[in-house]
Amino acid sequence: MPTSVTVLAPATVANVVCGFDVLGFALSEPVDTMHFRLTDTPGVTIINEDAFNLPTEPARNVAGAALLALLREAPGVGVEMRISKAILPGSGIGSSAASAAGAVVGANVLLDNRFSREELVRFAMFGEEVASGAQHADNIAPCIYGGVTLIRATDPLDIIPLPAPPLWVSVVHPQIEVKTADARAILKQQVPLRAAIRQWGNVGGLVAGLFMNDYDLIGRSLEDVIVEPVRSMLIPGFDEVKQQSRAAGALGGGISGSGPSIFMLSRDEATARAVAGVMEQVYDRLGIERLTYVTTINTQGVQVL
Amino acid sequence: MPTSVTVLAPATVANVVCGFDVLGFALSEPVDTMHFRLTDTPGVTIINEDAFNLPTEPARNVAGAALLALLREAPGVGVEMRISKAILPGSGIGSSAASAAGAVVGANVLLDNRFSREELVRFAMFGEEVASGAQHADNIAPCIYGGVTLIRATDPLDIIPLPAPPLWVSVVHPQIEVKTADARAILKQQVPLRAAIRQWGNVGGLVAGLFMNDYDLIGRSLEDVIVEPVRSMLIPGFDEVKQQSRAAGALGGGISGSGPSIFMLSRDEATARAVAGVMEQVYDRLGIERLTYVTTINTQGVQVL
Repeated sequence: MPTSVTVLAPATVANVVCGFDVLGFALSEPVDTMHFRLTDTPGVTIINEDAFNLPTEPARNVAGAALLALLREAPGVGVEMRISKAILPGSGIGSSAASAAGAVVGANVLLDNRFSREELVRFAMFGEEVASGAQHADNIAPCIYGGVTLIRATDPLDIIPLPAPPLWVSVVHPQIEVKTADARAILKQQVPLRAAIRQWGNVGGLVAGLFMNDYDLIGRSLEDVIVEPVRSMLIPGFDEVKQQSRAAGALGGGISGSGPSIFMLSRDEATARAVAGVMEQVYDRLGIERLTYVTTINTQGVQVL
Repeated sequence: MPTSVTVLAPATVANVVCGFDVLGFALSEPVDTMHFRLTDTPGVTIINEDAFNLPTEPARNVAGAALLALLREAPGVGVEMRISKAILPGSGIGSSAASAAGAVVGANVLLDNRFSREELVRFAMFGEEVASGAQHADNIAPCIYGGVTLIRATDPLDIIPLPAPPLWVSVVHPQIEVKTADARAILKQQVPLRAAIRQWGNVGGLVAGLFMNDYDLIGRSLEDVIVEPVRSMLIPGFDEVKQQSRAAGALGGGISGSGPSIFMLSRDEATARAVAGVMEQVYDRLGIERLTYVTTINTQGVQVL
């Protein structure tokens, strides 16, 4: 049983187009780096090694709150975390989920992996609660399981890991702020039955496409008639990015999480790089600073070094 | 190229619980028997060999309207159909779809299979229009393709045949009338976003369960929080049938089509027979005449003899 360990906790995309609140996947990069050490003093110690100036009081820190939830079931244990985040908070690619998931996976290694992946998701959801006020699992699950995950239901929690063919992901993070509270408030609480039916037809098509390695079906199913038409209004350049990405060969994509990042899926690296190129051009023309990533779906989830 | 042929057109279940308007499957029985013969007179001749007294004027007959649609693309051809229906009209297990699908599959054999399955679905939808006023494909597609089908979208039509593990089906048809118009009028045209999300989580889970042969996941996903709570009010005994079927070992199930039939899925024949037994008991207690079927998912669709 090691007394120290380092893990890499990846960024994730939740709200995968038609799969609002149920589908997510892990990215190969960016990743947060987190070092763990057992200590003689029970409880959680947090050392931030990045410039984000996040709280070090465990109950107010996303990673800390997740770890506290785990330690409630492992009393007497002390863990020190040194955290170096590379996933920007507020980017919409699961920064808080990476902190929370990394914390519980790292601590679990030091506890001889006594907790199951599903238990780890439950602990990490306490971290998400600190970040957003809600215990959602749609970034946490892919971060811990890797690959694509379906949250079939939340009460009780039912996580279904899904297969996927090789997929490349282009992500653009325009440097604007979309407050999660705004992104929620803008959603209509009632939706037309016709639109809901179209959405669940697409969810069925997307899941089937992932199982069948059917890229065309995946592309046709990447359509969101409920959330995207509303939320995309908060992201300047969204329609242009989407249209030009498709023209550049992307299978499809949409808002990552609640934004402002936008992701697009492609069959191969060359297409994904071309897509990232058009994403950059759109924001350069709009005069908005942006970061882009060209990466793949991370099938492993949090990596233990 | 044969000048005559006989086909068996199976019953189907549409609106598969969470998969309202998108998921359907074919049953091994009951089946309609249809005999076809090329004639020298262009057009459609219908001879009813059953006691349902359905219209013989082609444009007003479900099978006739489907066949007329096909013959618009095969001008000059004459086909005589002798129809012996075993699937009761108004049962909710795809009686009109069997007529329409059988008609076009049978005629296509006589035309050396010149039309694709998707074209046949399009022709058969004209039959459904005669039956219900709407061109829906959710019974037609499984009737023609066999197995389980997903109608991802209707505009344009996108049919995805899905795999399935061996499944037994118990169907009870209580001898009451549920008017399709009533079953439609009772639906709310706006649904809560939370319920829609739960529904598409279940659709994703059901499709994944079918691919993974995961009976437990299939069972957990057979939940409809949108349509069933409303439509089941039109079917006396529904809640009792559902609850007792689950207690007898059924994976789950719900209203077939727009009712009044109720179907339940089971892993094996013994369970499916026990489920049919409790279905019968419920309606016997209620003093409502009923028919039951214990059958399997028909992987072939319309069978050409």
